[in-house]
Amino acid sequence: MIDQLVSRIAELNCPICVGLDPQVEFIPEHILEHYYKHEGKTLVAVALAFQDFCCRIIDAVADIVPAVKPQIGMFERYGSIGVTAYDVVCEYAKKKGLIVIGDIKRGDISSTAEGYAEGHLGWSDITDEENQPWHEDIVTLNPYMGSDSVMPFAKVAARCDKGIFVLVKTSNPASGELQDLEIDGKPIYEIVGGLVSKWGEEYIGKSGFSRVAAVVGATYPKQAARLREQMPHTFFLVPGYGAQGATATDIVASFNENNQGAIVNSSRGIIAAYKKPKYSHLPFNEAARAAAIDTRDDILKALNSR
Amino acid sequence: MIDQLVSRIAELNCPICVGLDPQVEFIPEHILEHYYKHEGKTLVAVALAFQDFCCRIIDAVADIVPAVKPQIGMFERYGSIGVTAYDVVCEYAKKKGLIVIGDIKRGDISSTAEGYAEGHLGWSDITDEENQPWHEDIVTLNPYMGSDSVMPFAKVAARCDKGIFVLVKTSNPASGELQDLEIDGKPIYEIVGGLVSKWGEEYIGKSGFSRVAAVVGATYPKQAARLREQMPHTFFLVPGYGAQGATATDIVASFNENNQGAIVNSSRGIIAAYKKPKYSHLPFNEAARAAAIDTRDDILKALNSR
Repeated sequence: MIDQLVSRIAELNCPICVGLDPQVEFIPEHILEHYYKHEGKTLVAVALAFQDFCCRIIDAVADIVPAVKPQIGMFERYGSIGVTAYDVVCEYAKKKGLIVIGDIKRGDISSTAEGYAEGHLGWSDITDEENQPWHEDIVTLNPYMGSDSVMPFAKVAARCDKGIFVLVKTSNPASGELQDLEIDGKPIYEIVGGLVSKWGEEYIGKSGFSRVAAVVGATYPKQAARLREQMPHTFFLVPGYGAQGATATDIVASFNENNQGAIVNSSRGIIAAYKKPKYSHLPFNEAARAAAIDTRDDILKALNSR
Repeated sequence: MIDQLVSRIAELNCPICVGLDPQVEFIPEHILEHYYKHEGKTLVAVALAFQDFCCRIIDAVADIVPAVKPQIGMFERYGSIGVTAYDVVCEYAKKKGLIVIGDIKRGDISSTAEGYAEGHLGWSDITDEENQPWHEDIVTLNPYMGSDSVMPFAKVAARCDKGIFVLVKTSNPASGELQDLEIDGKPIYEIVGGLVSKWGEEYIGKSGFSRVAAVVGATYPKQAARLREQMPHTFFLVPGYGAQGATATDIVASFNENNQGAIVNSSRGIIAAYKKPKYSHLPFNEAARAAAIDTRDDILKALNSR
């Protein structure tokens, strides 16, 4: 699936994905009011509003971006009905030809990891390929528990042609509290990067990148540059552009000398673009499309002038 | 909520919780067949079978144990309908007077962590206390991303009288790959233990323990003993007893000199007890009750003979 992601990025000349992190304050009033009117101010109403909002964003960007990254936490906030809406959004995005990166950041002991892996990337032990429990192509994972929490996902990913992104250096302000601690001069994120490279060795595809990939935050460009050098066969998912503070110049470090090997995520900068003066004359979906094009062009410009 | 957990453990003289980690092979044939007959061999059938199975286990142990720990991954394997069953099980356990420890191991950037925290421990921004999106009292969390991924949960927990267990030293075989690496002679799990103590300082309750608690695997008793000493105000959730290999002797290290400060989890040793020769003459629910009593007595004996 990382091979397919690399191909789609090249075909569309677009190394960005759209993060679907809905929040009530991002949803246009007329959509919220519609569902509140029919369902009351309930979890169901918000779940339906999120679903509607995200599907219309998907319609607006499906021909220009290779992938979307729905964030399950934002849906999970509204209970199991919210999680159901997350799955509907993933399935809709797949039907529209997008690669779906499920931002779930799971990690658990091996028996549980197998359960998560079979559910999210496989098709469980009782159903078949036509009836998958979830509809993601790639999921994000947390490495704190070690290889036996990650490898069950890698195995299912290999069997079902899916992929995984393992957290290496995250984009949030406090990421360094643990990840930057040094062991004999080597920070933990580099040690985790080494583990991720090793876990991915047997899964390198035609693109030259492994289906065991990494999350490397754009907000730490120096660290990203070091990791890019040390992990030549590891594809990077790069969060942190825009609202979290990283610029197009910062993200260049995550790409290799051929301007390959990474996809940059932007969430609220695209899905809530209609709230910014620059796009406020447009309906929310057209604003998202315009912002996605601007984000793509901003990043391509930085890559082409490095 | 950690105060309530400490009280209930003392009242019942029972420092164990029952892990609800259902797997298809643990479910008695007659339950599975019932749902397969009505729903076909589908995700819905498995979700209903898990719900039925777990609720009958809850009925069997509710008067003897203080808490249950449903593992969301085992339900998530069967899609969003599985997650719905997880929530039904949590709500049922609460109604039966049990403290519900949701084993979700979440961790994400602050905006997402707020979403997860409000959803799992609070009551979201649009509903009220009577209509909570989920029905857990305490949830497990992953610390890899640092304080801004954990503190949103601590804040909501304080507001809504809930609790959190942060992974410190996990019970799985590969936990040492990252957690045992040493920085100036101090392993990472001790550094994380120090962070968890610090995060919990302002949340210490009447029991002397903080609502910011820790997960410390029973499979590493020496490490647990060190952590117990270093974290006097931190309550421990102790997985790894039984199927994962730790014995009652191993778990003693997680308790303080007053035999307080920890709760031991047992999952398949209790819920699948009817599959063992010792309990095979009993129906699955009675076998679970007998195994829970035996587990409790095994641990009390070890604590009382230390």
